[in-house]
Amino acid sequence: MVLLEALNWRYATKKMNGQVVPQDKLDYILEAARLAPSSSGLQPFRIFVISNKELQERMIPISENQSQIADASHLLVFAAWDGYSLERIEEVFNQTMAERGLPADTMDGYKQRLWSKYEPLGQEWHANHAAKQAYISFGLAIGAAAEQRVDATPIEGFLPPELDELLGLDKMGFKSTVILALGYRDEANDWLVGMKKIRTSKEDFITEIV
Amino acid sequence: MVLLEALNWRYATKKMNGQVVPQDKLDYILEAARLAPSSSGLQPFRIFVISNKELQERMIPISENQSQIADASHLLVFAAWDGYSLERIEEVFNQTMAERGLPADTMDGYKQRLWSKYEPLGQEWHANHAAKQAYISFGLAIGAAAEQRVDATPIEGFLPPELDELLGLDKMGFKSTVILALGYRDEANDWLVGMKKIRTSKEDFITEIV
Repeated sequence: MVLLEALNWRYATKKMNGQVVPQDKLDYILEAARLAPSSSGLQPFRIFVISNKELQERMIPISENQSQIADASHLLVFAAWDGYSLERIEEVFNQTMAERGLPADTMDGYKQRLWSKYEPLGQEWHANHAAKQAYISFGLAIGAAAEQRVDATPIEGFLPPELDELLGLDKMGFKSTVILALGYRDEANDWLVGMKKIRTSKEDFITEIV
Repeated sequence: MVLLEALNWRYATKKMNGQVVPQDKLDYILEAARLAPSSSGLQPFRIFVISNKELQERMIPISENQSQIADASHLLVFAAWDGYSLERIEEVFNQTMAERGLPADTMDGYKQRLWSKYEPLGQEWHANHAAKQAYISFGLAIGAAAEQRVDATPIEGFLPPELDELLGLDKMGFKSTVILALGYRDEANDWLVGMKKIRTSKEDFITEIV
C-alpha cells in the first residue's frame, strides 16, 4: 500500500516553503526516474537538475510566473532527444551488448528494423515519441517523491524554446519537455493544500471489455 | 526503498505463464493509474481492461505477434481523448467544483484561458498532449505492478487504428496509446529474465546545472 498511500498524500503543491530536499531523497527520486522503462530501452531523454536560485528566478518569466519555479528546492527538467538517429540508437545498443557481455552485432537486425521504422516518421514524431518516454519516467519520479514525502509540482506551463536556450539544451540536442519542482509545501499559504483530490470516478475511468 | 526495490525487480517480461493476477492486485494497479496527476487535472484518457482470451488472440496479429498479448492475465489499454473540446473540459471542471462544494463558475476564467490556448493548437497536438498525460499514469501503473510483484510488459508495438476499431474506441472518442500487459513471468522460457538491467549511467542521465 506504500505507493497508493503516497499518491493519496501528494498534490500539485502551489506554494513551497523554501526548505531544501536532502541529497539522499533527491538521489532516490532521480534513481526511480532513471530506472523507468522506455521504448526499446533507448531512454531518449535526460534530467537536468537546477537548484541555483538566481537561475530559478530567471526562469520565472518564461514559466507563467509560477512561484514554485523559484521556491522549489530543486527543479528536475526532463528533456527529450530532439530526434532519433541511427547514431543515437547504436550508442545505446552498443552499451547494452557490452554490459551484457554479448557480441556487438547481436542487435544489428533489431537496430535496422527500428531505424527503418523511425526514420520515415520524421522529427516531430520523433520528438513526441521521445517526450512520451520521458513522461513514464516523470510519473515514476512523482511516485518516488511522494513515497519520500517530498512535495512535487508537475509543471508544463513554461516556454520550451526559451528554456532550451536559457539552459543550452538546444545545443546539446534536447528539448525541454516537462518540469518537476521538488520541495515542501507551505501549508499556511497554499490554497490547494486542504482541497479534496478530484479524479474521474473508477466507473468512468476503467472499462472492462468482456 | 519500496518503489526503488520494485523497479530493480521488474523487467519487460517477454514470456508470461498464464497465471491470473488476483483482483485486489489488479485494483491496486488501476487505482495508482487513476490517482496519477495530469495537466490541469483533465485526465484526458481512460483505461480499458481486457482479460478475454479470445479477444486477446484476435489482438495478436495487430500487435507484432507478441505472445504476451495472449498470455497476459490482463491487458490495460491506455486510450487518450482524440482531442480536447470545451465540452470535455467543462465536464471535468464542473465535477471538480461540485465535489469541492464551490460555485460552478469558479473556474470559468481558467477554463476560457485553457481553451483559448488549446483550441488553435489543433487535433494532432491535442492527441499527443493527451497521450502524454496517459504516459504519466502508465508510469505509475508500472511502479504499482512492480510493488505488487506483478509482472508487466509495456507495449507500444501495435497498430492503434486497427485496435481502436477492434475495441470500438474510435466511436467513443478515444485513441489507443499504450498497453500494459500484466501477468507472471515464465522463468524457464523468457530469454530476458536473467539479463542484466541496462540503463544510461547516472553520470550521463543526470546533469546538474550550477
